[in-house]
Amino acid sequence: MLEAADQALVNDLTGAPSLKQRRALAKIITLLESTRLDHRHRADDVLNSLLPKTGKSFRLGISGVPGVGKSTLIESLGLYLIEKGHRVAVLAIDPSSSISGGSILGDKTRMERLSVLENAFIRPSPSSCTLGGVAEKTREAMLVAEAAGFDVIIVETVGVGQSEIAVAGMTDMFLLLQLPNAGDDLQAIKKGVMEIADLIVINKVDIDPDAAMRAQLFITSSLRLLGFQGNPDHASHDKEFWHPQVMTLSALEGKGVPELWDKVSHFEKLQKANGKFESRRKQQAGAWMWDRIDAGLKNAFRSNEAVQELLPSLVAQVNQGTMAASVAARRLLESMGHEFF
Amino acid sequence: MLEAADQALVNDLTGAPSLKQRRALAKIITLLESTRLDHRHRADDVLNSLLPKTGKSFRLGISGVPGVGKSTLIESLGLYLIEKGHRVAVLAIDPSSSISGGSILGDKTRMERLSVLENAFIRPSPSSCTLGGVAEKTREAMLVAEAAGFDVIIVETVGVGQSEIAVAGMTDMFLLLQLPNAGDDLQAIKKGVMEIADLIVINKVDIDPDAAMRAQLFITSSLRLLGFQGNPDHASHDKEFWHPQVMTLSALEGKGVPELWDKVSHFEKLQKANGKFESRRKQQAGAWMWDRIDAGLKNAFRSNEAVQELLPSLVAQVNQGTMAASVAARRLLESMGHEFF
Repeated sequence: MLEAADQALVNDLTGAPSLKQRRALAKIITLLESTRLDHRHRADDVLNSLLPKTGKSFRLGISGVPGVGKSTLIESLGLYLIEKGHRVAVLAIDPSSSISGGSILGDKTRMERLSVLENAFIRPSPSSCTLGGVAEKTREAMLVAEAAGFDVIIVETVGVGQSEIAVAGMTDMFLLLQLPNAGDDLQAIKKGVMEIADLIVINKVDIDPDAAMRAQLFITSSLRLLGFQGNPDHASHDKEFWHPQVMTLSALEGKGVPELWDKVSHFEKLQKANGKFESRRKQQAGAWMWDRIDAGLKNAFRSNEAVQELLPSLVAQVNQGTMAASVAARRLLESMGHEFF
Repeated sequence: MLEAADQALVNDLTGAPSLKQRRALAKIITLLESTRLDHRHRADDVLNSLLPKTGKSFRLGISGVPGVGKSTLIESLGLYLIEKGHRVAVLAIDPSSSISGGSILGDKTRMERLSVLENAFIRPSPSSCTLGGVAEKTREAMLVAEAAGFDVIIVETVGVGQSEIAVAGMTDMFLLLQLPNAGDDLQAIKKGVMEIADLIVINKVDIDPDAAMRAQLFITSSLRLLGFQGNPDHASHDKEFWHPQVMTLSALEGKGVPELWDKVSHFEKLQKANGKFESRRKQQAGAWMWDRIDAGLKNAFRSNEAVQELLPSLVAQVNQGTMAASVAARRLLESMGHEFF
């Protein structure tokens, strides 16, 4: 059962689009982000009550290195979508936000035309000490935005560390924004991001069209060599399934944005028809659950008193090479009182 | 305190090189690999008693796709090293061994000249249902081989899945064996293996010297673009530190094996002088401990009765979208009776 105040928030959230609705959305996300245990229990109840109204948006992940033009593209795309009648929520995952206070979306003026619209909702990255914590809050915020009727959710992340994997793991389609620059492409291959991208968009084609075309060719042939992309000339290329594509655009000039959305819409249609849309969401929900279980188990270990007492001396012995690491691990686990083997 | 039978094994193991010693080595590894809890406790005691005699070998990891010529290279290198007075143990990590019965080193005849020598010890991959389990047994076997006086330990793995990361995480130097073939190179970049390789060796130069040279050039420039390799022409290239290198050889003809060992010896000398050898080993021991703690925590979760009872219905609700994954995770953790938040 929801507390009266929370029920009022839920009513505002699931009512008609209005300033009150956007305020309820912001307040519920703040409740979800709280580290207080009583807030956490209230937030769980709110989430469960909203769940039947969630899941009806298209979730688009966008990643790219700093300076690639993510904010510019998201503003162009957001304005285009709202003009077409969509309601667009923009969330962010910034693993450094707990240190920096948020380097992306922290400054709303970066999307000043989009942020003032009633059918847009922009929320900076939650701060937390772990990427898993940040990702969890963003997943939950996504569900709340869906319950408020936002039908396109864009989740933005910077192209550093593991945050792209987290974003790809919570969205229906993952878009990698690239600069026309060969080192950038190899980095994306190296980090395994190329592998999870459904669409690779080379931005800033206005600045150097030749470099952009070379990048497009290199990425296309890399995708083939890596086996990520079907060859449309081959009989094995299955038209019912999406194969990762590479396109160029200029976010600054807004050129290519309608073509981008055409590709996204085509992707959505194919995925819904061939069952991948549904199976990806189910797989994501399961992975999310196991991810949180892992994090909880580690937390229980670290906060266990017997472990805290034993840990320093065992770590020292492992470091000095006087105890095998596997033996130390077994001693620590046994001290928690569980039967671990 | 060791049981009398185990003390006898330890005495044989740490005595002079002999058939008895190799038998003791094999028996102790078998004890380590046992899943029986009483064996596990005995094995821990044996490990701890051996620990002061471990750590004095050079640990070399070798990885490459099936067919790249790992066994041929290891035999050539092993014979060369034994001729120079070394004692060589060859271990393997094959994550598929629990299913296939071991596709690498399973058939000792693949190293028939090496396997008959008194100063060689060859042990196929342990079988276990998880890569973490296989890796743990191999790490422990490595320590036992060191206590028996083997001064070069080679750990072989196939280039599939995460096993290369595991091998790089337990060796002093990680060598990636490549075919002269561009798709192969991109795969290695994609999987993050290029990133952890200290030395990249292009094999089968006898078959196609031109392709081997092209591969060497591509990999060298990729390493530079990815920032893994100092440029010897630049002032920033520090001669005190090792920078990943690329070389070619023919394992079949034995050509390039002495040059390979020269590079390995140079690597060892630099790493010991600049402190990286020691710090890498410490870091590995710490990571090994945390890895085993993670595995133990997951095991405790899966075997907990309250969890087993709740899990099916919660998984079903998450799948159907009637419960948020984070809420399900919290319920399961609370059912274990710990305070997880």
